[in-house]
Amino acid sequence: MYFATFQTGEKTELGLLSTNQTEIIPLQAAERYYCKTATLPDTMLAFIQHGSAALNTVQKILSRLDGGCPMVSLASAALLAPIPRPQKNIFCVGKNYVEHALEFEQTGDVNLAVPKTPVIFSKPPTCVVGPGAIVKNHRHITLQMDYEVELAVIIGKQASQVTKADAYDHVFGYTIMNDVSARDLQKAHAQWLLGKGPDTFAPLGPYIVHKNAVPDPHNLAIQCSINGELRQNANTGDMVFDIPTLIAAISAVITLEPGDIIATGTPAGVGGAMKPPKYLQPGDEMRLEIEKVGVLINTIEE
Amino acid sequence: MYFATFQTGEKTELGLLSTNQTEIIPLQAAERYYCKTATLPDTMLAFIQHGSAALNTVQKILSRLDGGCPMVSLASAALLAPIPRPQKNIFCVGKNYVEHALEFEQTGDVNLAVPKTPVIFSKPPTCVVGPGAIVKNHRHITLQMDYEVELAVIIGKQASQVTKADAYDHVFGYTIMNDVSARDLQKAHAQWLLGKGPDTFAPLGPYIVHKNAVPDPHNLAIQCSINGELRQNANTGDMVFDIPTLIAAISAVITLEPGDIIATGTPAGVGGAMKPPKYLQPGDEMRLEIEKVGVLINTIEE
Repeated sequence: MYFATFQTGEKTELGLLSTNQTEIIPLQAAERYYCKTATLPDTMLAFIQHGSAALNTVQKILSRLDGGCPMVSLASAALLAPIPRPQKNIFCVGKNYVEHALEFEQTGDVNLAVPKTPVIFSKPPTCVVGPGAIVKNHRHITLQMDYEVELAVIIGKQASQVTKADAYDHVFGYTIMNDVSARDLQKAHAQWLLGKGPDTFAPLGPYIVHKNAVPDPHNLAIQCSINGELRQNANTGDMVFDIPTLIAAISAVITLEPGDIIATGTPAGVGGAMKPPKYLQPGDEMRLEIEKVGVLINTIEE
Repeated sequence: MYFATFQTGEKTELGLLSTNQTEIIPLQAAERYYCKTATLPDTMLAFIQHGSAALNTVQKILSRLDGGCPMVSLASAALLAPIPRPQKNIFCVGKNYVEHALEFEQTGDVNLAVPKTPVIFSKPPTCVVGPGAIVKNHRHITLQMDYEVELAVIIGKQASQVTKADAYDHVFGYTIMNDVSARDLQKAHAQWLLGKGPDTFAPLGPYIVHKNAVPDPHNLAIQCSINGELRQNANTGDMVFDIPTLIAAISAVITLEPGDIIATGTPAGVGGAMKPPKYLQPGDEMRLEIEKVGVLINTIEE
C-alpha cells in the first residue's frame, strides 16, 4: 500500500495509489462509498496516529473496490509531501554508509571516518516540500548546496526504550527524503542545524509505502541522479547502523511518536566529495530512487 | 505582562500573572466577563499566533479589572510549561558565553574555544516539562547529567531573512529554559541531538514575560543553584552572539514562526566543567533565575 497526500483545489486529501499505479483512491470518499462510514481522518499524521483501525478500514475499501467510487488520475493529482508538516524536526543520521563517511575523511582511515555510535541531528518542519517542488537556492548565503538520497522511516507506534528485536513493530512504513545540505554552512556552524535546515531542504515523498510492502528494508537499491548523471548508487544493506539499531538508540532516551520521521543517512557520491566538487546549480534536476519505495524528483530554483 | 499556561482539573488554560504576583487571571473567563466577547484562544501558541489583536484584548481586560471576575490563586494553580508542546524542536545555541566556551576548552585558547559563527542545534518537543516537574535521570544510559540556565526567546511574528535592526520586532517575549544535557551522550554521538534531547530535558517557564517588560534583555542577572549552591552567576550581556545576531543568523535560511523558541546558551559554571566534575544526582534541586523573567525550579528523579 502506497499512501499519498494530495491536493484538489484548496482541499488536502489522503489517498492510496491504485494497483496499476495510474490513479489515486481518495480514501475518505472511498470509505463513505464502500463502507457507509466516515472514520478515516483527512491528514496522514492523523491516519498514522489512528493505528490499525484505520489500516483495517483501508483493507475493507480495497476488498470492495468495483470502480463505483471516482478515482483521481495520477497525472492530474497534485501530490504534496506525504506528511506536509511534521509535528517536530525530522531525525537525521550522519555518516551512516561506510563509503560516504570515507569520502569526507581526508586521512582515508575507516576507524576515524565511521562513527562508533549513530550521529543524530535534525531538520525543522519548515524544510519539507513535496515531489516536484522547487528547492530554494539560498544563494545569498550558500554556494555549496548538495543532494543526499535517504531512506526515511515513518514511526507508526509510540516507541520508548524499544529493543532492536521489537523495533519494526513501531514502524509504519517508508518514504524517500532528499537531505539537501549547504556544506559551507554545515562546516562553519559546527553543529549541522543551519547547514541542513534551510527552508525547502527536505523534499519528501512521493508516497509512504506501508512496511508490509517492503519485507526487507535493508536490501533496496538506492540511487540519485543529477540532470540524468548517476551520482549515488548503493544498497540500503550498506548502512553502518541499521533501522532497528537507530530506533533503539533514539528511543533509549527520546520517545518516538507516530508520524515521526527518521532519515537513515546517505550513501557515497555526494557532490561535495567529488574532485573537484560538483555543487548543485540553479535549475539542476535531482532524481532520487529507492527500490520498492519510489522516485522523488525536485529542481533547484533558477 | 507575565503569561502562564495552567491547569485546572482536566482543562488547560491561558492566564496572566496579577500585578501583585499572587494570582493568575484566567484570560478567557476574564474576556467574557469584562469585554463580553470570546476571541482569546485557550493555548499560548494560538495566543502568540493571534498577534497584536490578542494583546490588545488583554490590555482591555487589564484596564477594566475590578475584582469581579474570579482569579486563581498562584498557590493553587498548577503551572505547566508556558508552551507545553512546541510546534517543532527548540532552537538552541552552543558555546554562547565566552567563559562557558573556555571552561570546556583544554588548551585555554579563547580563539579555539569561542565559535566564529553561532553553533545551532535542537531539542525535540518531547523534552519540554513545566516548573516543578521531575526531570528523568535516564540512569540506564547516562551518568553525566548537567544543568544549563538559559534565557529563551519566544518568536512573535514570522521571520525570514530579518536584519539585526528589525529582529526585536519578531520577538514576543522571554522565558527560562534549563538545557539539561547528558555530557557522555553529547560527546559519544558528535552531533548533540541525543545528548541534549532526552525526554524531560527542557524544563521551561514558569512564565513568558512580554518583551515590553524587559527593555534590555542583555542586561539581566542569570543564575543557577544546585541544592542551594550557586553554580552559574553571570549576566545576559556576556553573550557572544546577541539576540538580534541569532535571529538574523537563523532566519537567514530558516523561516522562524510565531511560537518558535530560541534558547540563547548558558554561562560558565556547569557541573561537567568543575574539577572534579559535579554531575546531577537523583533528588538534586535545580533553581534557575533570570532577572525580570522569573525563577524555574525542577528536581532530578530519585
